[in-house]
Amino acid sequence: MLKDGERIDQLYSQNVQIIQSADVFSFSLDAVLLANFARIGKRDRRVVDLCAGNGAVGLFLTAKTQAQITMIEIQPKLADMAQRSVKLNQLADQVTVINADLKDSFNYLRKDSVDVITVNPPYFVNYNDSHKNPNPHLALARHELATNLESVVKTSSGLLKMNAKFFCVFRPDRLTDLLVTMRANRIEPKRIQFVRSHIGDNANMVLVEGIKDGKLNGVNVIADLIVYDGDQYSKSVKKMLYGEQ
Amino acid sequence: MLKDGERIDQLYSQNVQIIQSADVFSFSLDAVLLANFARIGKRDRRVVDLCAGNGAVGLFLTAKTQAQITMIEIQPKLADMAQRSVKLNQLADQVTVINADLKDSFNYLRKDSVDVITVNPPYFVNYNDSHKNPNPHLALARHELATNLESVVKTSSGLLKMNAKFFCVFRPDRLTDLLVTMRANRIEPKRIQFVRSHIGDNANMVLVEGIKDGKLNGVNVIADLIVYDGDQYSKSVKKMLYGEQ
Repeated sequence: MLKDGERIDQLYSQNVQIIQSADVFSFSLDAVLLANFARIGKRDRRVVDLCAGNGAVGLFLTAKTQAQITMIEIQPKLADMAQRSVKLNQLADQVTVINADLKDSFNYLRKDSVDVITVNPPYFVNYNDSHKNPNPHLALARHELATNLESVVKTSSGLLKMNAKFFCVFRPDRLTDLLVTMRANRIEPKRIQFVRSHIGDNANMVLVEGIKDGKLNGVNVIADLIVYDGDQYSKSVKKMLYGEQ
Repeated sequence: MLKDGERIDQLYSQNVQIIQSADVFSFSLDAVLLANFARIGKRDRRVVDLCAGNGAVGLFLTAKTQAQITMIEIQPKLADMAQRSVKLNQLADQVTVINADLKDSFNYLRKDSVDVITVNPPYFVNYNDSHKNPNPHLALARHELATNLESVVKTSSGLLKMNAKFFCVFRPDRLTDLLVTMRANRIEPKRIQFVRSHIGDNANMVLVEGIKDGKLNGVNVIADLIVYDGDQYSKSVKKMLYGEQ
C-alpha cells in the first residue's frame, strides 16, 4: 500500500491513519486545527474539503460526522495518497477523493448542494519575485500557483447551499484579503479564532467561519488558541493531538 | 468654566483635565485605549481626531506629541466642552477644536495634509428598528445617525498624506465592515489588537492601524489587550489609567 518514501501517521486522538510523505506532502498543525474548528451539524449531509492535500482534514472530520465527505485535490500524487488512506481506513463508503482543479468542482458536484466546506488553501500570493519551495509539490501547496484565494472562495460560494458553512485556515497577514474576498463572494464571516505560538505573540494563523448569504456583520472573535505553554504543547493542542489526558 | 451637570475628570496617568457631563458625554475606556494605541512619529506635524466628542482622545495625545492636533466634532455642546478643556489645560497653542460635520473637513483642512488620524466612530449601524439611546447626544455618538463608517474612512483617506497613519477603535462585530471599508478607501490595515474583558472572553473592542496607500496585506495581529484580571483592572490598563505603579 505504501510507495517509496511514504509512511503512515496517526494522531493519538484520532482513529484514522494517514499516508504521508516528507518528499510530497505531510499534514501539519493547520489541518488539525481546521478539522477541530469546523462545526458540522447533525443534519448536514454533504461536506467538501477543498485543497485537500493528502486528505488529513477530511479524514479527521470522519470522527465528527456521518455526512458524505468529498475531497478535491489538484495534485495527482496527493490525491492518490488520500485515496489510499481512505481505503486503509475502510472509509470508502463515506469519503470520495476527486483529483481535479477546484475550479472544475461543478463537473462533479451540483451548485448550491453542499452543507459544509473546509479549506486550507495556499497562503502565499504568487508574486514573480517571491521565493518558492524548490519541491514543486510543496510549492503548489503553499503558493497560489495553481489556484488562489479568489478562486477558492468563489468556488466555495457556488458549491454551498444558502446558509451553509465555510471553514478556512489562513495567515493573519492576509486577513483583509480573506474577509474582503469572503464578503465579495457572499460568504459572511461570523466566527474568527486567532492562533498564537505563545501567549503574547502575534497571531500566526487564523481560523474563520463564514455563512453563505449570512446577514452582514455579527463577527465573534472567540478566545485565542495558544499552541505552546513554555516548550510543551498547550492543554488544548495536546487534547487535539493526543485526546483526553 | 463649568456648565450645569459638568465635572472635571483627570486620569492619574495624564496631566490633562477633561470636562465631562453624564447628561451629554463622558469619555470611556475606548478613548483611553485609542490614544494609547496610536503611534505618532517625531516628524509628524499634524494630527486630526475625528468624532472627537468632548476631546478626550486629542487631549490624551498631547502627552505623546508636539504635533498640532485638530479635533472635529459635529455636536455643538461636545465641541464646546472640548474647547473649554483645551483652555483649561492651556493647550490652545497646540489644539484646535472645530465644530463641524466631518464631511466638511476639507473646508478647514487641506486634502493630503495630515500625518495621523485617530477616530472613535459611532459603532452601531442605523437600522430603522435598532434601539437608540433616548438621550440624543449619546444616540449620535453611538449610532450612525449623523455619519457612518464609510464617510469616516473616506474623509480620513482624503485628509491623510500618502503613507500617513489611521488609528481607529471599533467593535469586532463589524470587523469585516471596517477592513472592507478601509481597503476600499486606500487605507490598508497593518496592525490589529483585540480587546477582551477577561482572558478567554470574546473580543469586545478592536483597535486597527492602517496606512494610506500602504502595500496590500502585511497585517500584524498583536497580543490581545485584556482589561480585567479577576475583578480588578489588568496591569496594562492600570498603567494607562494610573500611570507607572
